[in-house]
Amino acid sequence: MIYIMDKVRILEIGKSIYENNDAEADKLRGELRERGVFLVNLMSSPGSGKTSSVLRVAEHLGDEMKIGVMEADIDSAVDAETVAAAGIPAIQIHTGGMCHLDAGMTRQGLESPEMAGCDLVILENVGNLVCPAEFDTGAVKNLMILSVPEGDDKPLKYPLMFSVADLLLINKIDCLSMFDFVTEAVRERAAALNPDITVIEVSAKTGEGFAQVADWIRENREAWTQARTLSSGG
Amino acid sequence: MIYIMDKVRILEIGKSIYENNDAEADKLRGELRERGVFLVNLMSSPGSGKTSSVLRVAEHLGDEMKIGVMEADIDSAVDAETVAAAGIPAIQIHTGGMCHLDAGMTRQGLESPEMAGCDLVILENVGNLVCPAEFDTGAVKNLMILSVPEGDDKPLKYPLMFSVADLLLINKIDCLSMFDFVTEAVRERAAALNPDITVIEVSAKTGEGFAQVADWIRENREAWTQARTLSSGG
Repeated sequence: MIYIMDKVRILEIGKSIYENNDAEADKLRGELRERGVFLVNLMSSPGSGKTSSVLRVAEHLGDEMKIGVMEADIDSAVDAETVAAAGIPAIQIHTGGMCHLDAGMTRQGLESPEMAGCDLVILENVGNLVCPAEFDTGAVKNLMILSVPEGDDKPLKYPLMFSVADLLLINKIDCLSMFDFVTEAVRERAAALNPDITVIEVSAKTGEGFAQVADWIRENREAWTQARTLSSGG
Repeated sequence: MIYIMDKVRILEIGKSIYENNDAEADKLRGELRERGVFLVNLMSSPGSGKTSSVLRVAEHLGDEMKIGVMEADIDSAVDAETVAAAGIPAIQIHTGGMCHLDAGMTRQGLESPEMAGCDLVILENVGNLVCPAEFDTGAVKNLMILSVPEGDDKPLKYPLMFSVADLLLINKIDCLSMFDFVTEAVRERAAALNPDITVIEVSAKTGEGFAQVADWIRENREAWTQARTLSSGG
């Protein structure tokens, strides 16, 4: 079911029909490659700052690529409305109570007219540090956020999320003095699970660190586009 | 599988064998009633302050009732170790990657010797604002925490959790000046979903508000014990 409320399109998505999500994710990734759509999957606990980080990324990259944002939540359209109010094409995906998105659900979101012609699509997954890590959405890269108030022990408790992330943003770094949080401990614990992970300290509130995040996305998108051209062009 | 590591018992719990979790939860609740064990299920996002809130509750109630704590996580034993180091009987439950506990898993935890003879057992569920709300653990009361850094829009996005909670703690209230968080908005949004919910503002860091939390637990346990005596004594 699709309806438009409060200016943003809301997709009510049911359970996916695909039995083999990994195969479906690979297929979707292949199609995105052909269409030149760089899809990133952004995951974190509730309230870590996903939406405000999306807005910061758009500030840096909005002039050089067309960005679309798909906001997933159990209910409400507040995030998509926030993003749309900043002038960025956005849709809200309702998961029907489900705790994660899979490739089939992601595909349904990508088919909405707001995402047409986008160079970079950011999928903001359901706020959840457990289940979204288990399902390949078809994204080219997985980004995750850990915010300072959540504590530096999270890689110990939710290892899979840190294992599947390509980029980890440590957000709310402006609050460091308020909390017992050692960034070096997170870096070490994340690297122990995932030696290839990139870690950037940011504050979505002040904007600190997002030039570096934009660089990371730009570089990874260029490398992916180049590989695409080489593989399709011979 | 059970093994003891770093001083705390770790239970590796697999998927429950019960098809009807609601029936199993009611059965467990009935057994706990007979044994006089007041079980509370504590839920929140990762890093909202569940473990530090448990320690604060134990400070207030530890002299008047025997308390046991069951810590559930995907991995690590850091929470159970923290609780045990404070002199409170504690076990760590590993969910085998699962995002929630059900009644069968809770039962397995309750059978561990550390929980024997406890008047109050606190089950710290997996840090997750989605899935734990869907599964009745057999607890007499559901407690949840929303911490200030997570934002006041969470009842809009995760309505089921706020609907099943009997008590909502708004934690990290000492950080209120650092964040755009309106406590009255949370109270209104939670009450709209659940008119019977009790809301208490706390800081597990400073201890503010936990005398009131202890009162709530004491009163609800007394009411439950009284109802128990009446129903069994005639």
